[in-house]
Amino acid sequence: MHLDRGQQEYGTLAALFEEYLQSHQPFGKPDSLYSPMRYINELGGKRIRPALVLMAYNLWSEDVTPALPAALAVEYFHHFSLVHDDIMDEAPLRRGKPSVHEKFGRNEAILSGDALLIRCFDLLLEAGKRNGSSAELCSFMCRVALEICEGQQMDMDLEKRISPTETEYLEMIRKKTACLFGLSLRLGAMLSGSSSTDSELLAEAGELMGLGFQIQDDYLDVFGETAQTGKQKGGDILQGKKNYLYVRTHHTLAPSAQSEFADQYFKAGREKVIEPVLDFYREKGIDQYARNVAEKYFQTGVEKINAIDGVDGKTLVSFLEKLMQRKH
Amino acid sequence: MHLDRGQQEYGTLAALFEEYLQSHQPFGKPDSLYSPMRYINELGGKRIRPALVLMAYNLWSEDVTPALPAALAVEYFHHFSLVHDDIMDEAPLRRGKPSVHEKFGRNEAILSGDALLIRCFDLLLEAGKRNGSSAELCSFMCRVALEICEGQQMDMDLEKRISPTETEYLEMIRKKTACLFGLSLRLGAMLSGSSSTDSELLAEAGELMGLGFQIQDDYLDVFGETAQTGKQKGGDILQGKKNYLYVRTHHTLAPSAQSEFADQYFKAGREKVIEPVLDFYREKGIDQYARNVAEKYFQTGVEKINAIDGVDGKTLVSFLEKLMQRKH
Repeated sequence: MHLDRGQQEYGTLAALFEEYLQSHQPFGKPDSLYSPMRYINELGGKRIRPALVLMAYNLWSEDVTPALPAALAVEYFHHFSLVHDDIMDEAPLRRGKPSVHEKFGRNEAILSGDALLIRCFDLLLEAGKRNGSSAELCSFMCRVALEICEGQQMDMDLEKRISPTETEYLEMIRKKTACLFGLSLRLGAMLSGSSSTDSELLAEAGELMGLGFQIQDDYLDVFGETAQTGKQKGGDILQGKKNYLYVRTHHTLAPSAQSEFADQYFKAGREKVIEPVLDFYREKGIDQYARNVAEKYFQTGVEKINAIDGVDGKTLVSFLEKLMQRKH
Repeated sequence: MHLDRGQQEYGTLAALFEEYLQSHQPFGKPDSLYSPMRYINELGGKRIRPALVLMAYNLWSEDVTPALPAALAVEYFHHFSLVHDDIMDEAPLRRGKPSVHEKFGRNEAILSGDALLIRCFDLLLEAGKRNGSSAELCSFMCRVALEICEGQQMDMDLEKRISPTETEYLEMIRKKTACLFGLSLRLGAMLSGSSSTDSELLAEAGELMGLGFQIQDDYLDVFGETAQTGKQKGGDILQGKKNYLYVRTHHTLAPSAQSEFADQYFKAGREKVIEPVLDFYREKGIDQYARNVAEKYFQTGVEKINAIDGVDGKTLVSFLEKLMQRKH
């Protein structure tokens, strides 16, 4: 492992993190509480958020080892939210395997999710010991954790409505998804002793890019090829899930066309096809519009990273670019 | 309000806390996340844990105002666990009113419970700022919070078994109930700047007394009069819930008598009466035994408090005695 500042690649960091996670799996009594925690930890995933913690840390410090507890904290938080969200959404699968509540039972899923959240705080306290930042790390985590709860609740509330506004949708994805990207970068920066101005810039960059990713994700869900995305094309349309393309289209249509569009979008069962919805999107240029919006958020994020003095952000930006194109 | 050390009574402190809680109710967007939090906060209850925080603080400091955020943190933690436990137990009522999941829906209950846990940590961080103890307060909270999750999981696991041992039962109630009493006293002590020896003694006292309370509670559930307890006599027997008297009796019986006892205990429906179970208890002297065990835990706790130098613990002990006798 070479130890230059800002040079460590995603692959190296993800492997380092994986080893740390595996050697720090939680054990305790009763095992019925701890085995669901280990299960979700082992389900895999790209470990994007821990990689962001480590990459941010690496901008100022060579050896990223001291940032591993914070990287694990962020992953535990992410897993806590996955476990509880899957109960709420009644999702039978997570990463192609049975979700925690399917495998272990609903009560065990609630409780092991709680335990993951608690362990997240404990890991942050540990992470901050070396530079006395424990309380501050936890304070930022509390703020973002509450925003993520707000985002999940907004998501459930918006799903019950026919016409959420674009502003509401953007606020929802900012809270539910984007702010954890921002926090991951912030925690890494704070631990490496960066100035508060720099960690703020990095957090803002993460949040903007998180917004870009989610909108890009919404675009790719509809127009991406399965070979690129690994998912069924138009999954959100088939499930009647209101993503960015939906709310933007709805916004641009006259009231009469809105109901025709909604009829197609929420049609259920076998007769549902995605083509009429794609026609609406193409007709209104929503596909290109969504890509542009995603790209704009992303580029504004890049500018924030470039505005940080004295660090080499190229590896970080390149990782984020690949993420944007889902090329991992 | 008089401000002598160790002199402030439960009534005064509970009223002070109530005012603080009411003026710090959580608001935010979406309200569908925050209104369940306000609802559980407003359901009442005796505010025992916050009172313990304030009484412990008052042993060393006159004005308890600086301990109010920690008192609220502990109450938020308690409410988080009530909201999630009620989902797990499918309890329709909490304090005679609809439980949070009954009133607001299961998903809202999961999420607002999560938010209460997050706010608990945030309040502790705030509480510790004045004497730089934020990280340490959170660290103790993490430890106890995880134990409480373990206790709840043990409780669910033990309910599925016919014959949990007395040791297992005691470990379960220590984790599920008693350790939060210990933590409440510890947090108050730490905030008032007591020595670590003294806060440790107080935490041990709280945990021992918490064990005493729970066993006394189990005894009163069976042998207490409704006029004293406000609950239906023998509720645990009617529900087939394995409390301390059950596990102790089971332990003392020969295998043949065990199955007869269990038959009576788990008999369902209209034919179930509590008298045969009470006969088993009286025959084996379980009623007196349980009272003695409860009293012994309690007195060992009192001794720990009395071992703390230079404080006047009489008001605290007298409050705990009343609690033990359920005379509030």
